[in-house]
Amino acid sequence: MFGDKLCRVRQAAPLIHCITNYVTANDCANLLLACGASPVMADDPDEVEEFTALAQGLVLNLGTLDRRTVPGMLAAGRRAKALGHPVVLDPVGAGASRLRTATAQQLLEEVRPDILRGNFSEIKTLALGGGGTHGVDAAPADRVTEQTLAQSVAFVRDFARACGAIVAVTGAIDLVSDGQVTYCIRNGTPYLRRVTGTGCQLSALTAAFAAANPGQLLESTAAAVCAMGLCGQLAETRMGSQDGNASFRAYVLDAVCNLTADQLEQGADYEMR
Amino acid sequence: MFGDKLCRVRQAAPLIHCITNYVTANDCANLLLACGASPVMADDPDEVEEFTALAQGLVLNLGTLDRRTVPGMLAAGRRAKALGHPVVLDPVGAGASRLRTATAQQLLEEVRPDILRGNFSEIKTLALGGGGTHGVDAAPADRVTEQTLAQSVAFVRDFARACGAIVAVTGAIDLVSDGQVTYCIRNGTPYLRRVTGTGCQLSALTAAFAAANPGQLLESTAAAVCAMGLCGQLAETRMGSQDGNASFRAYVLDAVCNLTADQLEQGADYEMR
Amino acid sequence: MFGDKLCRVRQAAPLIHCITNYVTANDCANLLLACGASPVMADDPDEVEEFTALAQGLVLNLGTLDRRTVPGMLAAGRRAKALGHPVVLDPVGAGASRLRTATAQQLLEEVRPDILRGNFSEIKTLALGGGGTHGVDAAPADRVTEQTLAQSVAFVRDFARACGAIVAVTGAIDLVSDGQVTYCIRNGTPYLRRVTGTGCQLSALTAAFAAANPGQLLESTAAAVCAMGLCGQLAETRMGSQDGNASFRAYVLDAVCNLTADQLEQGADYEMR
Repeated sequence: MFGDKLCRVRQAAPLIHCITNYVTANDCANLLLACGASPVMADDPDEVEEFTALAQGLVLNLGTLDRRTVPGMLAAGRRAKALGHPVVLDPVGAGASRLRTATAQQLLEEVRPDILRGNFSEIKTLALGGGGTHGVDAAPADRVTEQTLAQSVAFVRDFARACGAIVAVTGAIDLVSDGQVTYCIRNGTPYLRRVTGTGCQLSALTAAFAAANPGQLLESTAAAVCAMGLCGQLAETRMGSQDGNASFRAYVLDAVCNLTADQLEQGADYEMR
Repeated sequence: MFGDKLCRVRQAAPLIHCITNYVTANDCANLLLACGASPVMADDPDEVEEFTALAQGLVLNLGTLDRRTVPGMLAAGRRAKALGHPVVLDPVGAGASRLRTATAQQLLEEVRPDILRGNFSEIKTLALGGGGTHGVDAAPADRVTEQTLAQSVAFVRDFARACGAIVAVTGAIDLVSDGQVTYCIRNGTPYLRRVTGTGCQLSALTAAFAAANPGQLLESTAAAVCAMGLCGQLAETRMGSQDGNASFRAYVLDAVCNLTADQLEQGADYEMR
Repeated sequence: MFGDKLCRVRQAAPLIHCITNYVTANDCANLLLACGASPVMADDPDEVEEFTALAQGLVLNLGTLDRRTVPGMLAAGRRAKALGHPVVLDPVGAGASRLRTATAQQLLEEVRPDILRGNFSEIKTLALGGGGTHGVDAAPADRVTEQTLAQSVAFVRDFARACGAIVAVTGAIDLVSDGQVTYCIRNGTPYLRRVTGTGCQLSALTAAFAAANPGQLLESTAAAVCAMGLCGQLAETRMGSQDGNASFRAYVLDAVCNLTADQLEQGADYEMR
């Protein structure tokens, strides 16, 4: 089932418009090309709506947030929604500054994104109007573990229901919920946290999966989360004794390039609750 | 002949000022270092003229265009022209938004760049005042193939004559014309399109070749186009079964580093029309 | 002794806030992760003070300087100083434009950074109020060699004393001084200059070492300079015949990932004057 989602990305080759940060924009663009989609990065408020209209999906990513681009995020988000394109919000650093928290909340309310993808600290900030963050990483207390799994699932499910979006929380265990069903995903490796922007890349991948699989937001998001985690695992098997996070970063993108539907189908490690 | 052009880049080590996008700026900088040139990226209108004056060539690249930087592009472009430095315009996404189309046309008219480097959709937009684009990629109808070659050559030659610049259209077959002679170049590999920013890198490489070979704009541009395509071919021969677009991206830059004059001389695959 | 400094970085895992350029931001973030620290990049004046307060160290890097971010650099710098966090100023391109020179001098005077890290042309510009630069590289006349070493040491020592900061000048021989003692460091390889942003990466690494080793600014800076140079040397030993600057760039980051305290302790090549 998840394998089919990947096939559709390769067939549809959706164009994904990213209004994103300058730290990981190159990786996000190459990730989109790796999975079979195409990227376009544009953030000037004067032109974002036109790019959104040309594309099939939109990512709003708050890393290196610049007040100048917020009106464009709002306009592009509304345009994408009007056109029925999936909108992914990645609230990087929500909770770490008032600007990020306020912008994330404004986008949540005014755009009503289809998918929220963040770490647990960021998602809690949006759900509760506050929360602790360690810069752009989840606070230690917010990590999802086997011990906290049941309550975490309930939290994510309730927030997904309340905000009417798919909520994807990524961490040691990833949770993806539409307010009814919650996927608990155990793909991935801690090494993914040693490369900057693997979360940003996942948000872009999620937009590609959602754009290529209309009407299947929950399954598409879960498939993308499994795919990214699995590619991290595959990358890890390739690591030699002299390799470090730079080689790992390349191996992850390479693995996305070479990932087959069968590999994803068989390698996806999840349960539904 | 093209081998000599590369030798001159390594001897002259020209400093190239790039006013460019944040997605591919790092790759463009490393590409310039790989070929033997030096990069400087600066885009604040308050300082661009000073950097242009220190440099030997200028690239104006419209990817992630920001209105804030347009006055600087105009000022730097005029300054470079006044100093006799080659100016390369890469009209990324022209045709995809009014801002990009209008900015590209304004730069074309007010700066009169020496070299235009883009895909066929972007170049058609500038030649015809409109055209179709697929985000920042050429529209399928605008691809240069053996079937459409004769008419494409005529189009590019006529536009080069009309705008008084070298026009370089890159795609499956690359065309480089000064309005009289047109190089049809068959170097390259489709894999180059699976890495973001190989077009941006080529624009930077073209500026380096042009800056190091004064008075030979047509041949320098053709040499740079052949070199980039050839490095794509060399990179492809290095691809292992687990490699993907991230490894390929590195192999291309590595190939530029190691490219010899003999390799370029013998590997350049072109005819003149 | 330098080995212990590295161990402290891995134990303390300091969060480093970078207000930096878009060319090398990704490499700086991955370098910080490689050494055991964490990055956060944020530059909007509305939020930088909050990120600085969350972090344990601050880097102000003037590459791709944008006037919009200068008030944020000043505010973040003052906040970091008030909190006792180390502030590293990397005056990229000082001397190449009036905006960069004036901004670097303003930051020097109003923030009083703990550490200045640049090439000799940039440092001379700040010390003398002017100087020659070749874009963002040191002018040939400003290279530190065995012949000019004694006078260079005196210059750096005197400037460190005058400005009350650790001054780190990097080049063929690196000099790190607190105004009393000067480390002359011979780690490194010329190949580091063929990758864009290795200086930016070193500034980020220096902030991580300084943040994790409070009260030891001079030794921490010298240790970071040795570590970066040593990782360049280790990367060079890994270079195959087809490798170029892209592979080298990855090998440097990989080497930082894998660097052990013993390797740094034994590989650090310096004398004190």
